[in-house]
Amino acid sequence: MKTLARFAFVALGTLTSAGLAAPAGPEKTAAALRDRILAGSRAAEWVSQITDLAGSRLPGTAGDRAGVAVALSILKGQGFASVRAEKVMVPVWQRGVETGEVLSPAPQKLVLTALGGSVATPEGGLEGEIVRVASLAELAAIGDGARGKIVFIDRPTARTSDGSGYGDAGHVRNSGASAAAKVGAIGLLIRSIGTDPGRIPHTGGMTYEEGVPKIPAAALSWDDAGLLRRLVARGGPVRVRVTLGCRTLPDAESANIVGEVPGREKPDEVVLLGAHLDSWDLGTGALDDAAGCGIVIEAARQIAALSPRPRRTVRVVLFANEEHGLKGGKAYADDHAAELPRHVAALEVDLGQGPPLGLSWNAGTGAEAPLKTIAAVLAPIAADRLLVGDLGGADLAYLLPSGIPNLGLLQDATEYFDYHHTANDTFDRIDPKILDRSTAATAVAAYLLAERPETLERIPEEKRKLPAWLK
Amino acid sequence: MKTLARFAFVALGTLTSAGLAAPAGPEKTAAALRDRILAGSRAAEWVSQITDLAGSRLPGTAGDRAGVAVALSILKGQGFASVRAEKVMVPVWQRGVETGEVLSPAPQKLVLTALGGSVATPEGGLEGEIVRVASLAELAAIGDGARGKIVFIDRPTARTSDGSGYGDAGHVRNSGASAAAKVGAIGLLIRSIGTDPGRIPHTGGMTYEEGVPKIPAAALSWDDAGLLRRLVARGGPVRVRVTLGCRTLPDAESANIVGEVPGREKPDEVVLLGAHLDSWDLGTGALDDAAGCGIVIEAARQIAALSPRPRRTVRVVLFANEEHGLKGGKAYADDHAAELPRHVAALEVDLGQGPPLGLSWNAGTGAEAPLKTIAAVLAPIAADRLLVGDLGGADLAYLLPSGIPNLGLLQDATEYFDYHHTANDTFDRIDPKILDRSTAATAVAAYLLAERPETLERIPEEKRKLPAWLK
Repeated sequence: MKTLARFAFVALGTLTSAGLAAPAGPEKTAAALRDRILAGSRAAEWVSQITDLAGSRLPGTAGDRAGVAVALSILKGQGFASVRAEKVMVPVWQRGVETGEVLSPAPQKLVLTALGGSVATPEGGLEGEIVRVASLAELAAIGDGARGKIVFIDRPTARTSDGSGYGDAGHVRNSGASAAAKVGAIGLLIRSIGTDPGRIPHTGGMTYEEGVPKIPAAALSWDDAGLLRRLVARGGPVRVRVTLGCRTLPDAESANIVGEVPGREKPDEVVLLGAHLDSWDLGTGALDDAAGCGIVIEAARQIAALSPRPRRTVRVVLFANEEHGLKGGKAYADDHAAELPRHVAALEVDLGQGPPLGLSWNAGTGAEAPLKTIAAVLAPIAADRLLVGDLGGADLAYLLPSGIPNLGLLQDATEYFDYHHTANDTFDRIDPKILDRSTAATAVAAYLLAERPETLERIPEEKRKLPAWLK
Repeated sequence: MKTLARFAFVALGTLTSAGLAAPAGPEKTAAALRDRILAGSRAAEWVSQITDLAGSRLPGTAGDRAGVAVALSILKGQGFASVRAEKVMVPVWQRGVETGEVLSPAPQKLVLTALGGSVATPEGGLEGEIVRVASLAELAAIGDGARGKIVFIDRPTARTSDGSGYGDAGHVRNSGASAAAKVGAIGLLIRSIGTDPGRIPHTGGMTYEEGVPKIPAAALSWDDAGLLRRLVARGGPVRVRVTLGCRTLPDAESANIVGEVPGREKPDEVVLLGAHLDSWDLGTGALDDAAGCGIVIEAARQIAALSPRPRRTVRVVLFANEEHGLKGGKAYADDHAAELPRHVAALEVDLGQGPPLGLSWNAGTGAEAPLKTIAAVLAPIAADRLLVGDLGGADLAYLLPSGIPNLGLLQDATEYFDYHHTANDTFDRIDPKILDRSTAATAVAAYLLAERPETLERIPEEKRKLPAWLK
């Protein structure tokens, strides 16, 4: 609390000298908050601490535990209230060795990475002839052509600003292995779901359908997919060997990390600011999603420095295990079931660092007017887009049934899928000035949601369903 | 020979229909040759065959032997005369396992790669505290500060169009290990000599000074160098572990690959077109230097298709072992000592794919006028720069003492050092249309050097010295 108090004092001085001490509309305070953050915030510092001092944070690993420790240290150090780790049991999948090679027409290396959740290859690796298809539809229609072979799904990911290219291609990663197994394949290779040329493959979660043989699945880098494509096009059999040592271990303990800026009038009413603390193991998850963690921590820290603090509580939740299981989101919904009716909004940041474009929202139609008030404050930074969506972020999926208005920070994702789930997702990808813009947008939204007397109309019954992919 | 004959016929027909059958100045023929290549050549196909069918070609390895086989197959298949493999014994250095990790302040992975020629680390890896310096000068002045530690030389490589940034930074890679050992260091890490952000490290040759302890040496990727820089800046000791399993094996057999387009009047006078067939092992050496091989093969093939063929012989030489020993260049100079007086020029292509900018040249001053004639034909493709230099390419170094005019294709290297000596140096980096421009420039130069009655004035005695780095 020490730090919060000090910040409140400093901020009060600042606001006074800016002529804002007199009572002002919350929009005016929000605009000042926006500008103070744009002048330079510490969001990138929190990202640097999470990534440099914990490294990658694959659920259930030492890195995950280090991430929890760093996050607790930041929240406590910055004087957040009620800082705590809420236990979450998470699945543990580990990568192990992974190698690939072309055996014929001529031996050479293949750069690949196991998809998260894949089974291992047999001892000594999996050898087979490649059969290339361009889509899941082509695979389904292959008849006996893939029997006993290794299927190579060579589907590119479109570069888009809204991330829709990922949505379109992602089902290849999620369901490709079982689709290939159904037609008799012994293994799956996919062109990485990503937009970057080069030798850096993209991992990501996959699932096996029940009742279908589990075959090993890996993603090739752009260049290695290009090599296989060219070799297949030259004619003649292309044989490869793939060795994956990945394995699933017993569930382990992780945690959702929580810290609060208590509301001055209605402390039991909560605006949730969410991001996820876990990451894939290849990089340090700077964009996915230490950036989101840095943004929500800093947004809340800047709100805490306001005087008076907003009417309702702003609660930062850094979720465990977003990437491969969503156990953190599930545990939060379960653990906090009793207070979910008093959650007035939940906003997730999980699309890299930005720049911010606006907000996606799922709420009652009556929410549109107050959201436009928020958007108006974000217009000067071109973050005033309002987009009706189902889900603000994967961690918030289990909050849908309770009807909490479900928001997401819209960010420009044009370059995001160059780095997503790769070794290149490191702190060097972070531009502190752009991160500040996303932080400003998040702080403005959270502040106004916590301060304005009225709350957003909750999600209508028919829009509270869990997404189909959560089964 | 069959293919050459067919090409000559086709080309004659083409030239006739273009109204060029009547005798014309060689510049006119050169311009038509240029335009025919710009309309679309097979240079990229040769690069694809060398890289896709042989893979990486580290001297003395199976990939090197596969490269020799592919190159012979191309030259024979295209009807070159006197196609042969000229034996070269080459040093063999192999990479083996290479891993790196930060141990403290918190464990995480470091992406690095051994420098070519490095010794291995001790069994179980080399552990030590990092001492960071920004330059070799800072290292030399460190006193006792590096004793028992692992030196990290954190010197960036400037992005330049002429490759000068590489020249400036390269000495860190070449001589850093011995410089560090002299001040008592136990290992060397360098920021990769390269211009690309991300997790792809750059290898390259290094040498040990005699009489100085040999310590293991590796290059960190851009991001991993950034991580160490930030951790050191946070204060407190930064400890790492590096494991390198590299080793030097007994010399093995490789070959310079030679093929010719025999001259119609003076077949014993030779214009040498050189590139190197070997590569580093991380990528497939598409830019370094399969591109050069593709360019010189295609340039000569297009010259062979002219009727009449040029006055002198155009000889393609694909050198062995440029990257780490120059044994191919040495062997060629030794094996062909008797005919070097009849080599009228040697031109090397070894700076990626282009675009072409012109020619570097080391010859007698009288060579400038005929070179300007060549440049004039290249002006329409902006490749008419003439730059006085010492050496057209490393493979040609041992030809300097014989006074053969020593030329190099100048190419725009702005992006070259993003990929140089990395896993990203693959066929996907090749743009066939740009490669055609470099091929056109090379063909024009080679044709005019082989056709025009006069030859270039040879290198004056004082400019025939071997470069200092060849010792």
